Amino acid sequence: MEAALIGLGMMGTGIAKSLLRGGHRLTVYNRTISRAEALRDDGAQVAASIAEACRSEVVFTMVADDAALESLVFSGGGILASLPRGAVHVSLSTISVALSDKLAAEHANAGQGFLAAPVFGRPEAAEAARLAVVVGGPADLVQKCRPLFDSMGPKLFVVGEKPSLANVVKLSGNFLIATVLESLGEAIAFARKSGVDAGALLDFLTSTLFTAPLYKTYGNLIVEGKHEPAGFSLPLGLKDMRLVLQAAESASVPMPIASVVRDRFITAMARGNQDKDWSVIGSVAAEDAGLTKPSPAAV
Amino acid sequence: MEAALIGLGMMGTGIAKSLLRGGHRLTVYNRTISRAEALRDDGAQVAASIAEACRSEVVFTMVADDAALESLVFSGGGILASLPRGAVHVSLSTISVALSDKLAAEHANAGQGFLAAPVFGRPEAAEAARLAVVVGGPADLVQKCRPLFDSMGPKLFVVGEKPSLANVVKLSGNFLIATVLESLGEAIAFARKSGVDAGALLDFLTSTLFTAPLYKTYGNLIVEGKHEPAGFSLPLGLKDMRLVLQAAESASVPMPIASVVRDRFITAMARGNQDKDWSVIGSVAAEDAGLTKPSPAAV
Amino acid sequence: MEAALIGLGMMGTGIAKSLLRGGHRLTVYNRTISRAEALRDDGAQVAASIAEACRSEVVFTMVADDAALESLVFSGGGILASLPRGAVHVSLSTISVALSDKLAAEHANAGQGFLAAPVFGRPEAAEAARLAVVVGGPADLVQKCRPLFDSMGPKLFVVGEKPSLANVVKLSGNFLIATVLESLGEAIAFARKSGVDAGALLDFLTSTLFTAPLYKTYGNLIVEGKHEPAGFSLPLGLKDMRLVLQAAESASVPMPIASVVRDRFITAMARGNQDKDWSVIGSVAAEDAGLTKPSPAAV
Amino acid sequence: MEAALIGLGMMGTGIAKSLLRGGHRLTVYNRTISRAEALRDDGAQVAASIAEACRSEVVFTMVADDAALESLVFSGGGILASLPRGAVHVSLSTISVALSDKLAAEHANAGQGFLAAPVFGRPEAAEAARLAVVVGGPADLVQKCRPLFDSMGPKLFVVGEKPSLANVVKLSGNFLIATVLESLGEAIAFARKSGVDAGALLDFLTSTLFTAPLYKTYGNLIVEGKHEPAGFSLPLGLKDMRLVLQAAESASVPMPIASVVRDRFITAMARGNQDKDWSVIGSVAAEDAGLTKPSPAAV
Repeated sequence: MEAALIGLGMMGTGIAKSLLRGGHRLTVYNRTISRAEALRDDGAQVAASIAEACRSEVVFTMVADDAALESLVFSGGGILASLPRGAVHVSLSTISVALSDKLAAEHANAGQGFLAAPVFGRPEAAEAARLAVVVGGPADLVQKCRPLFDSMGPKLFVVGEKPSLANVVKLSGNFLIATVLESLGEAIAFARKSGVDAGALLDFLTSTLFTAPLYKTYGNLIVEGKHEPAGFSLPLGLKDMRLVLQAAESASVPMPIASVVRDRFITAMARGNQDKDWSVIGSVAAEDAGLTKPSPAAV
Repeated sequence: MEAALIGLGMMGTGIAKSLLRGGHRLTVYNRTISRAEALRDDGAQVAASIAEACRSEVVFTMVADDAALESLVFSGGGILASLPRGAVHVSLSTISVALSDKLAAEHANAGQGFLAAPVFGRPEAAEAARLAVVVGGPADLVQKCRPLFDSMGPKLFVVGEKPSLANVVKLSGNFLIATVLESLGEAIAFARKSGVDAGALLDFLTSTLFTAPLYKTYGNLIVEGKHEPAGFSLPLGLKDMRLVLQAAESASVPMPIASVVRDRFITAMARGNQDKDWSVIGSVAAEDAGLTKPSPAAV
Repeated sequence: MEAALIGLGMMGTGIAKSLLRGGHRLTVYNRTISRAEALRDDGAQVAASIAEACRSEVVFTMVADDAALESLVFSGGGILASLPRGAVHVSLSTISVALSDKLAAEHANAGQGFLAAPVFGRPEAAEAARLAVVVGGPADLVQKCRPLFDSMGPKLFVVGEKPSLANVVKLSGNFLIATVLESLGEAIAFARKSGVDAGALLDFLTSTLFTAPLYKTYGNLIVEGKHEPAGFSLPLGLKDMRLVLQAAESASVPMPIASVVRDRFITAMARGNQDKDWSVIGSVAAEDAGLTKPSPAAV
Repeated sequence: MEAALIGLGMMGTGIAKSLLRGGHRLTVYNRTISRAEALRDDGAQVAASIAEACRSEVVFTMVADDAALESLVFSGGGILASLPRGAVHVSLSTISVALSDKLAAEHANAGQGFLAAPVFGRPEAAEAARLAVVVGGPADLVQKCRPLFDSMGPKLFVVGEKPSLANVVKLSGNFLIATVLESLGEAIAFARKSGVDAGALLDFLTSTLFTAPLYKTYGNLIVEGKHEPAGFSLPLGLKDMRLVLQAAESASVPMPIASVVRDRFITAMARGNQDKDWSVIGSVAAEDAGLTKPSPAAV
């Protein structure tokens, strides 16, 4: 079917390629137009403006945070002003529950549809059509967009009629991943300082109880202290903890582990790891155990 | 080969059966002798005293905690007094790093061998020879006991020459499991209170990112609020957090998530859940979010 | 001198009375005009609109939170639009560092002055001219307003040229007070459950080490479980923890105790204590120790 | 009256001087006898052994920790073996609730009396008879020893018939002090990194809300980063957090702030601050905010 995608970072570009491979007619837009032009060979049409991209009946957005999406939607000539009545905006970004609720209300006011459809997976998964997608919103809109979601990955979780439920699921998932990072960091620091070979420990744990691939992947990054290049950057991880804590506070749910993880991310920021992968909190655990010196950039 | 096993709780009984099925000649001892007698049909010899059990060249112990093991080993007529020079005591229990170090020293003084070999797995796994065993101690002793370990499960992790390293690994593993419980409890409370169906959330997460079976098993217990019968009881979980925090403190390693989990276990104890499974901390997360009333037994 | 005050809650009303008693010519404005009329007998002039109040050269605002102040300042006919060039807006409210920075910038753009001057003290202290005031902003403006501050209380802390520094100080102070609440709650729960008489404990501690009156005042509220009426309400306490954590995150400063306190406030909210004093977190500490049942309204 | 005092560290020596000045006949004992001899000029008798010191009807002990006191009491020729029936052992040390309970039971078995009487105050206060003493135990024994307590300081808190209640009070108090250290550390790091002058902040806070002297004393140490010489050393502070958490766990009381403080103490240990004052956790707060480098000794 026909769609547009606005926001061509690594994730957006990967999703665009999967949609094109899936046989959809895709128009793409990016502020830096070269990233859009690069997709012409894959069959994409390139829009010169947000307004032009909004001629599609389904418009995806994939940007870094609330501020970027608010700018796309609410600025003059933005999506809210440009999208025809009856068309649908599908937000793929990891945004706050509050913004998702606001978008649902504003698009409804404008006679437009809105779905929140955040995704799990790294850029490679996006390009390989292996994302897991969580979608929230009216069932008829979900139904309409299903062929597009099917081209993004094999796993679609339809969470309910309220779009922001999908954002709750996404934030819950990222919280659980961040917890894995922090708990591995603590366990590995404890084991190393007690004289256990950390690599052997990780092999044992991930071949018995903790067989989920993310334990192996992130565990190895922490054991090796390899946090560059950033698959998912520290500031994005901190943003997600902020979003989950905000949403949980609004729902009156204390999340003490989320608070611990947030503090670690902040310390990692204070020590100059802004460009590192979020697994760098494993290094903070090691530093706080006196195993290694904090990054010199920190002070 | 020939061995003895002292301590026939659910875990010890399961291990005894696996050893017998593995073709070893096993003598068993338990304070309440009926639990030993019950193993006669499986081929076990029954010892009338610890001293009698100590005529074997390898003596396993499997008891609930430090105090129980100290009593077995150090009391008059205990293992230390009864075991011949050159024989080996293999401790399968989840005990403190400090006690493991003490046992290594005391047995060495007495000309006896000592291995720490804590196990991962529930009673069913013990009986089905599917435990994962971590062993620390001198390589020749490990080599000697290997046929016995092989009858307990397919996975043996030899961690080093110092017995207590195995206890560090065991405690690290239990800390990681407890973290999974707490983080699932927080995520599920957040999702439920935000309007997400918790069962559907769990299905999605465990079929995508968190494929390790323990996420599914414990996640379901938390979603259903089903914490009886106790597969692993709350007081044992609290004991393990105490042991990991003690050992980490000795090694000067802060473990903030372990502290959070410990606090949850304590609150669960304060609310009268002594006989419940340690996954009951998921209920504490729900209670602290105002979702459910604390157990009436608590107050 | 001449001034106006917008926002006549308990704090604003008390400050208005102190300013009038100090001999200043004060115009007051409140959305619900009856609260303004009530000050006529004290000598206040009553403005019919924000614009009318803004005819003064110094305009104080005292409202509950960021949203209320933003509405006062930025709405049509608000302070930003109404205040003459050269006049000064003095914000007395406990607001975010970010909003304080924004107000400084916007007023500067409009050729207006801005001071942040949050206050410490309860309504009784406001009325009795016993507040402690912290002021941030250009020295000449501080100098100009000093006679007004002097009528509010004996203690003025001039923190620097940047207005939001005063908000940092205010938030730091409220964080320290909230820490006192939480730590007293924990200590009292521990003592009570161990069999110590909590009242006697508090008498001892506050007559030896913890002689600051707030330990006695809040300690008694916690010992007696008396959290109504609210001197400072739970939602305001939670707001302040949110503001201090936001500002500290922006400055890359982890504040783990602030996170703990925030979680307690959230649990207290989840249990239906919205109308209670913020010292109600002492009850949460007792509940989590199994000493008392959570409020029935919670579930 | 007549008494003996065993354990002549800085605190014990100060108390001995106050007792002598109070007109009591005091026998002193210390393993390193020179510290005892030094008190001859003040009028003390010097005992050559524990047994000799135990000829007094009241024997005080003041040592560093549980292990030291257990050794004094339970070793051959120790207090338990040497003290006559009817005489009383008064433990002034900060020890665990569990050991206090054990001492009460063992002394009772031996027909001896036991009081727990931990003290608040630094060595200077001990020597100046300005300690605050908390005493737990049978009323008649407290009555008997009252003239001795009166010579130690003006403030005696009689907490009840069970000796260990006094230890609960002491641990509660030290927990509250440690909380002050950590919260000041966090607030000062936040303020400094936001651009506020930390010294001025502290002056303001301690002259308004936080007038208890310990805020000023410890606040200044933290602002100046002056943690040597140690008035109360980091390892002793860590010990006290361990004891309060153990006792609270036994009573099923979660104390999340105590856990946070404990983690900070551990990190401070890991960074090589063993010889510093416990206020050094203020430096950890600064380091975790990226303000200063961790001590080089740490890595």
